[in-house]
Amino acid sequence: MSASPNSPPSSGATSKYWTPRVAALEPYVPGEQPKTPDLLKLNTNENPYPPSPRVAEVYSRSAIDDLRLYPDPTSTALRSTIAAYYSAKPSHVGASLTADNVLVGNGSDEVLAHAFVAFFAGRDEPLLSPDIGYSFYPVYCKLYGVTLMPIALNERFEIDPTLYQRPNAGVIVANPNAPTSIAMPRASVEALLRGNPDTVVLVDEAYVDFGAESVVPLVDRYPNLLVVQTLSKSRSLAGARLGFAIGSPELIEGLTRVKDSFNSYPVDRLAEAAGIAAFEDEDYFRQCCAKIVATREWTTAALTELGCQVLPSHANFVMAKPGSASAREVFERLRAANIVVRFFDKPRVGDFLRITIGTDPQMKRLVGALREML
Amino acid sequence: MSASPNSPPSSGATSKYWTPRVAALEPYVPGEQPKTPDLLKLNTNENPYPPSPRVAEVYSRSAIDDLRLYPDPTSTALRSTIAAYYSAKPSHVGASLTADNVLVGNGSDEVLAHAFVAFFAGRDEPLLSPDIGYSFYPVYCKLYGVTLMPIALNERFEIDPTLYQRPNAGVIVANPNAPTSIAMPRASVEALLRGNPDTVVLVDEAYVDFGAESVVPLVDRYPNLLVVQTLSKSRSLAGARLGFAIGSPELIEGLTRVKDSFNSYPVDRLAEAAGIAAFEDEDYFRQCCAKIVATREWTTAALTELGCQVLPSHANFVMAKPGSASAREVFERLRAANIVVRFFDKPRVGDFLRITIGTDPQMKRLVGALREML
Repeated sequence: MSASPNSPPSSGATSKYWTPRVAALEPYVPGEQPKTPDLLKLNTNENPYPPSPRVAEVYSRSAIDDLRLYPDPTSTALRSTIAAYYSAKPSHVGASLTADNVLVGNGSDEVLAHAFVAFFAGRDEPLLSPDIGYSFYPVYCKLYGVTLMPIALNERFEIDPTLYQRPNAGVIVANPNAPTSIAMPRASVEALLRGNPDTVVLVDEAYVDFGAESVVPLVDRYPNLLVVQTLSKSRSLAGARLGFAIGSPELIEGLTRVKDSFNSYPVDRLAEAAGIAAFEDEDYFRQCCAKIVATREWTTAALTELGCQVLPSHANFVMAKPGSASAREVFERLRAANIVVRFFDKPRVGDFLRITIGTDPQMKRLVGALREML
Repeated sequence: MSASPNSPPSSGATSKYWTPRVAALEPYVPGEQPKTPDLLKLNTNENPYPPSPRVAEVYSRSAIDDLRLYPDPTSTALRSTIAAYYSAKPSHVGASLTADNVLVGNGSDEVLAHAFVAFFAGRDEPLLSPDIGYSFYPVYCKLYGVTLMPIALNERFEIDPTLYQRPNAGVIVANPNAPTSIAMPRASVEALLRGNPDTVVLVDEAYVDFGAESVVPLVDRYPNLLVVQTLSKSRSLAGARLGFAIGSPELIEGLTRVKDSFNSYPVDRLAEAAGIAAFEDEDYFRQCCAKIVATREWTTAALTELGCQVLPSHANFVMAKPGSASAREVFERLRAANIVVRFFDKPRVGDFLRITIGTDPQMKRLVGALREML
């Protein structure tokens, strides 16, 4: 039996057929996807609400029959929809985008991977990134031979832009940061951009729709800004695999060169149509996000009352440090109670549990279980 | 305006933000996807028949609502279905596979790209491949820094395995070959495998279901054999983006390490279910393939009667050399008659047109148009 693809890499196992770089990889391990009945799954930051009802309308019999055809390799309909959406959005005053400012891919992870190849690989300087961040970034570094220089978050788990003024191959930050949930003000991102005019500053906004300030409106002014977003979280389409990048046409062309050298057709025909439908239903999107934000605030208050330290979240998850037991112990007790959250066995964040915001009844179940434990 | 992603690379255009490797890329250009009404599109080897009716059954409202959840990152249900299918298939006696012998990805192009990273990159020796083959292979070589050594096809456009006995980083061949349409007997593939026990021999069987001999049954005996297939052609699911590799568990583990360092979830939830449904409808699959093979034989006879030289095809396309005009001229005249085929402006294959096999009425329209021209 070889290792299951979802297990941690079997250390030491190798093969003469593997390239040296692949033998040295430490692949990303996503949150587990157990299928136990009655399990409350709060470990992968999925949306508790289904996608817009308009999404279902795209799966007509004729659209399914047309699966015999390749998708549009350029995904131009979805790219144009995203460009028009942000150009018109009241919170994005200043954004003036066309399809040439947008690349779409098979989830934001694919888009991030292409950005490493297009902008960060093969340079002498290191890539700068917070010492606590999305744990896929170091994995891409190993895959593409990029040296990573971790920059410490401050004692409040915030990013200090003044520490990113040193020679670099680029800068990558998640905003809100993962797994801390803490958002960075737009002015701080601008400080990163102004301090690094010759390299790409990638801002991963996977969680931005839950209350943080997007820097999409800065794309016109900073040719070195690349914003990456996903439809997996706020638009409830994790299963359809859609992510995108927004940036200057020259950055998008660089990414497109990599995409067209890797896979001409990364986006499923029906997924592209589903993504368009999701962007067209703004009311539904706002209602879902507002419900999750309200549930997050309720959850934060309830956990605080139970003695947890909860970091100020602008995401669809919270980081909570139990007061009277270790995070690992609480993680295990919750698991025994059929509730899965995420525990990271790492410095600093290892004191916390990352808890996805579900529906109100789901979070009441979580808080009820914790009340018995803490 | 930057270049459209589907245009040829704008030679010379570059950006200080691009890595040197990306600036030097020559991305793959897929067949055009025009949307003219009444156009007969015979240029991208799509299947003229829709997917199995069982595929439509997977797009239920509850499955669409579940798009809020991530897919299984390991795609174990589809991998197990494929393993069981080939272990039981009468034409595949000797194949004894489990899910550990299978990796699935976002189309066979993604699987091929991962194979370049897992097995071919960073080695001193060149990758051996026919001088006429799938034109994405040289693109992957540029992306991953692999040196390609083209090995000449013989005068009948066949692969001669004795020419592949030299130091190499690996061997990659399409069988049937693209765009020649010519199949290689299983014994010749075995000669490649026996001659190169220390490197991976990748056999790209995208078109194998239209009458060629698959080497899947050799996987048990050759740990260096990787077979890549797709659901885009014989199973009418080009729009759903599903491809897979079959090989020894050690090769599959190498590929999985790359996949898990690139994108945890490359396969859409609904696409995975569609792929399973397609594999479960064997009768429909056989009927579609048989119809295409019959139409191919009719088309070959009709084109021969018009004075074309038609290579002996085991694929869902034919390579036809017009007798009385250049391939380029005929390509342009067909385009004016609203029929798109594929013309490759390259040595040897530039004498031919690659024509996808459509339905009987479609091929009658093509032959009728050619009768006016030749």
